[in-house]
Amino acid sequence: MEKATIIFQPSGQRGKISKGKNVLDAARELGENIESLCGGKGSCGKCKVLIAEGHFPKYGVTSHKKNLSRWRKIEADFINATQKKEGLRLACCAGIKDDALVFVPEESRASKQIVSKLPRLLPVDYDPVVKKYDLIMEPPSAGDARGDLERILSALNVQYSLKDLGCDIDNLYSCDIDVLRHLPIRLREQNWHVTVSVWMDREIIRVLPGSVTDTYGIAMDIGTTTVVASLVHLNSARILDTQYIMNPQVKYGEDVISRINYHLQNKEGLRQMSMDMGEALNSMIKALLRSTWPEDNNWTETTEASDYPDPQKQREKTDGEFLCLVPEDIEDAIIVCNTIMHHILLQLDPRHVALSPFPPVVQKSLNIKARDFGINICPSAYAHILPNEAGFVGADNVAVLTAEAPYKSDQIQLIIDIGTNGELVLGNRERLLSTSCATGPAFEGAEITYGMRAAPGAIERITVDPETHEVIYKVVGDDAWSNYVKAGELKTCGICGSGIMDILAEFYRTGIINKSGAFKKKQKSSRYRVNSENRLKEFVIAWADETTIGRDISITQKDIRHIQLAKAAIYAGCKLLMREWGTDRVDVIKIAGGFGLHIDPVKTLIMGMIPDCDPEKIVSVGNAAGTGALITLLNREKRAESDWVARMVEYVDLASLEGFKDEFLEALHIPHQKDSFPHLKPIVSPKILFQE
Amino acid sequence: MEKATIIFQPSGQRGKISKGKNVLDAARELGENIESLCGGKGSCGKCKVLIAEGHFPKYGVTSHKKNLSRWRKIEADFINATQKKEGLRLACCAGIKDDALVFVPEESRASKQIVSKLPRLLPVDYDPVVKKYDLIMEPPSAGDARGDLERILSALNVQYSLKDLGCDIDNLYSCDIDVLRHLPIRLREQNWHVTVSVWMDREIIRVLPGSVTDTYGIAMDIGTTTVVASLVHLNSARILDTQYIMNPQVKYGEDVISRINYHLQNKEGLRQMSMDMGEALNSMIKALLRSTWPEDNNWTETTEASDYPDPQKQREKTDGEFLCLVPEDIEDAIIVCNTIMHHILLQLDPRHVALSPFPPVVQKSLNIKARDFGINICPSAYAHILPNEAGFVGADNVAVLTAEAPYKSDQIQLIIDIGTNGELVLGNRERLLSTSCATGPAFEGAEITYGMRAAPGAIERITVDPETHEVIYKVVGDDAWSNYVKAGELKTCGICGSGIMDILAEFYRTGIINKSGAFKKKQKSSRYRVNSENRLKEFVIAWADETTIGRDISITQKDIRHIQLAKAAIYAGCKLLMREWGTDRVDVIKIAGGFGLHIDPVKTLIMGMIPDCDPEKIVSVGNAAGTGALITLLNREKRAESDWVARMVEYVDLASLEGFKDEFLEALHIPHQKDSFPHLKPIVSPKILFQE
Repeated sequence: MEKATIIFQPSGQRGKISKGKNVLDAARELGENIESLCGGKGSCGKCKVLIAEGHFPKYGVTSHKKNLSRWRKIEADFINATQKKEGLRLACCAGIKDDALVFVPEESRASKQIVSKLPRLLPVDYDPVVKKYDLIMEPPSAGDARGDLERILSALNVQYSLKDLGCDIDNLYSCDIDVLRHLPIRLREQNWHVTVSVWMDREIIRVLPGSVTDTYGIAMDIGTTTVVASLVHLNSARILDTQYIMNPQVKYGEDVISRINYHLQNKEGLRQMSMDMGEALNSMIKALLRSTWPEDNNWTETTEASDYPDPQKQREKTDGEFLCLVPEDIEDAIIVCNTIMHHILLQLDPRHVALSPFPPVVQKSLNIKARDFGINICPSAYAHILPNEAGFVGADNVAVLTAEAPYKSDQIQLIIDIGTNGELVLGNRERLLSTSCATGPAFEGAEITYGMRAAPGAIERITVDPETHEVIYKVVGDDAWSNYVKAGELKTCGICGSGIMDILAEFYRTGIINKSGAFKKKQKSSRYRVNSENRLKEFVIAWADETTIGRDISITQKDIRHIQLAKAAIYAGCKLLMREWGTDRVDVIKIAGGFGLHIDPVKTLIMGMIPDCDPEKIVSVGNAAGTGALITLLNREKRAESDWVARMVEYVDLASLEGFKDEFLEALHIPHQKDSFPHLKPIVSPKILFQE
Repeated sequence: MEKATIIFQPSGQRGKISKGKNVLDAARELGENIESLCGGKGSCGKCKVLIAEGHFPKYGVTSHKKNLSRWRKIEADFINATQKKEGLRLACCAGIKDDALVFVPEESRASKQIVSKLPRLLPVDYDPVVKKYDLIMEPPSAGDARGDLERILSALNVQYSLKDLGCDIDNLYSCDIDVLRHLPIRLREQNWHVTVSVWMDREIIRVLPGSVTDTYGIAMDIGTTTVVASLVHLNSARILDTQYIMNPQVKYGEDVISRINYHLQNKEGLRQMSMDMGEALNSMIKALLRSTWPEDNNWTETTEASDYPDPQKQREKTDGEFLCLVPEDIEDAIIVCNTIMHHILLQLDPRHVALSPFPPVVQKSLNIKARDFGINICPSAYAHILPNEAGFVGADNVAVLTAEAPYKSDQIQLIIDIGTNGELVLGNRERLLSTSCATGPAFEGAEITYGMRAAPGAIERITVDPETHEVIYKVVGDDAWSNYVKAGELKTCGICGSGIMDILAEFYRTGIINKSGAFKKKQKSSRYRVNSENRLKEFVIAWADETTIGRDISITQKDIRHIQLAKAAIYAGCKLLMREWGTDRVDVIKIAGGFGLHIDPVKTLIMGMIPDCDPEKIVSVGNAAGTGALITLLNREKRAESDWVARMVEYVDLASLEGFKDEFLEALHIPHQKDSFPHLKPIVSPKILFQE
């Protein structure tokens, strides 16, 4: 299929898109976030974009209005004649015919409201751990019959001054044994012209015939509930694909403590949980690689390297449209996770991490040969596992720190990372404190009557109309809000963590609950009901006919109490950490969400989950742990930085602090006046209802 | 069983021996070489020893004649009354009742004549690669909740100034993942008192509870035909046990070229040969470990670590008499082998080593995790594989060089190592040349009519009476010579390499063959016969009734030709190497034999296998490759030295030299006059015949 180059501004995201797709499709493919409430139906008018006119030598494209499909009638409902003349289009209506430079206006950008599931890609210097060296050598001769490896080592020295490799006995790395096994053939395939991949300037982990420049890596973020893995083209820092799965260990227990118990009660429990994770990682890697192949390939379901079709043949067949990557092409890997997931993955006994004073088996970062824990990437490659801080605060928090770098700031930053646990970091370049607070799994959907994981059909955002108390929502797997589609079309089946995060703030803001979290006695909406028999109070979010479960999906008084407990744990943690640090204010609050948990900063303020702060200074930084993983995947210095910060940060054990209980009880209430945030408006006007 | 301390002088060999055994048994157990022609029957009188009287504080023993069993009548046949008074005994008759200091007179020492199969243990400083550190640490507390590994690293730094371990990101080794898996339990088993094994000052490969001082290693010498492995107590440099097996790859071809061909003709051939070797090494390791356990244990035939009985229980049960070692106790390994065996073991394509200019895949030494090539020792340990020199001259020759160190000598040394190939080194501290000569496998028993490997029943020494042309011989697995036992008792079945080495010299010395290697027309012995029909000329070594094969074991004219070809290859190689080096004489000749190949230096001179040299300056150094393996197992500096010498030595390709063919043809003849060595006497007088 023919492709066109599409460049988005001001983000700079760019790529080749098959002609015939529309600009909204292109945005999704390239990771550009364009608002779209109706899911691309042309009915919400949110996805306005400006098509640039002219030749742009900097980008090497010529962009014209006529490079896009003809104007559609429905666009006129949202774009007037003047705007049309300027080049404004609805992204969902503008089909791609040729190259285009597309400007996304502020109001069309979704990134502020709905954080992309993809970790943000921060600007980071390209300084990979695995570097490639192009070598042309003389073949062996009677006067020079050195070993194949010796020839390469000498060429690396002469051509690139890479001297430290394999010159004396103490230089133990020099070349992986698996590379030696391919060496004679690969050296001779293109007459002693090869590309050598060197890890950390000290070990050859791959030799390929001829000139090769592209290097690929994976970043893996292993959460208690969700696992995410991204395939990254290291040279361009581009994410080629991201895969999400539920942590397969969930079957051994929802939280980390029950998994430790499973290990304690089953002789092979640790091994079993680790093997399950290994399998899951390999299936994700397989899916990531598969995304680089044309769809019609005969793939077997195993993950054996030998089961991959011949990539060279396929690349030729598709004229280079597909990368056709195989496991060996992944030459670097980063793993971030909490301390318990870290220990289970590596089969390290995690029992002591759960007992005061919570010592982990190891804190420092580790470089482990891919083959030593059985992940199917280049067998000579290393996986780098970021260091643990202490106790429950693990490598994932180190990744958050590395992404946000509060240690480079004069301002006092409070970073809140919400996953199955809440992790807090407070401080600046002078001092950093970290802690973990037991939020319980409410924010991940557990303990909530209709709570569920962030799977398709889960309600992930909720907005309540302050006047009518009508509710609109959005579900995972569909771009449209419920007021843009027919009842039942969204196949709703529960509420996931991000939806739950909205409830307390929206209910309080619109007067459904009072400061103590109790439903008000007088309710104007028929969505509120009380079962007089068991005194069950509930508020319906989605009616039975909108769901696939045949029941109303509601929030009960008990659910609200669980959410209050979770938010109070974080609030109390923040307050105590501030007291320990010696400050009564913070300059910046950064809220990071786990996988699929998109947090609205202001709602966290309304519900009293975070200390008082100028709402302008509260930032949602999305999956910062994922971002940290990517940064350390791309930049060698950042790994050293993450090692340093893991040692620099001081861990505070909240339970050991005086006043924890009092702070916690006080934090259960909702602190603000109903009208504290008059400038806040719901992101979607509920008045725009479903349009036939 | 009760034990006594036995010390042999002047060698200093010492150890605990179960009471009831005799002094000859003790010598065998402790590796002391005492002559014994009759195999301990008391009929040859060769094993005379002197029992010291008095207390020897230096050794901590009190030695008395009465600490040995009573005088036996048969001893009087060889020891007169005066000698008896001095304390002289026959070792085979003197039973051990208590401690004794035993002096072995020059004439009773066997080492000069019959080289022990055990590699000689040269004096080498104890500087092991794996060092043990005893650490006592404070347990974690609220104020110090560091990781378990961090606690160890800090203790290593504070208590032993071992600073380089795991302090920054570039220090990638620090601790093996498998060690981390046992860390929490082992640290807490004896309340934070552990012993840490550190490899090369940089990686923790084992942590054991409490104080542990003993470290064990294995030295493995992989020959084309035979594999030998020794279990060594590194602290005392003592060999605990040695195992020999036939190289299982023999089924794919007798010589290296046919194994390369097997690889070229079979897709999985290389892997298969490597796996076979891995299995063989593991079965040897299992046998070595088994030798440290009491015999009545319930051993399964698998080599899984979990199948070993509980060593602690067993040690207690046997009062510490047995070491009861398990695979994890072997913390270091050395491998030496020729280039092709090296490549096959590591699954490196060996095809180019066989094609001019013969480049190997790798020359430098390698440190490979035991688990990466599947040998069942401590899984975190490394096997160190000595470097290859060039082409066919591999790590085994480097081991020979490291053992003999000609590079430290002013004298010009010629070192000849005879295995399936002959390898030559010539030079001194200024310059070293090496080469390999195609002797063919005659010296290993192949191509010889009744040739066989050095297995029990193989004739390994031959002596011919110059007057009667009667032959006496000795077989592998029995200490007695054939004239001391009844016909058939030795269960002779063929002639192995060391027997074959004797033939040319003995036949020529006693006038059975002439200078050109042809049987003389006139023969005085009925052992010589000619089959007039097929013109087969042969000389019988063992009559049919002495064998298990029911046929006369003889040497044919054709066999003699094969031996001539082999010895001529070595002679021509020596001459050409001397020409290349620029010398017409050598100061010292050292003859090293492969496994089970005990070479009589003077016989090699008689047959014209080596250049002219003062017989006093010809030394048989036994299995020097094995000695080199042991030296590098015990001493870290020696590994660096072996890396250095492998690069320093210059490889000479004989085939490319002018005059090779002429030298070779000339060398086929036997150069010396029959009476060149008048002082030579057969080692056993054939007049002492079988005694009833």
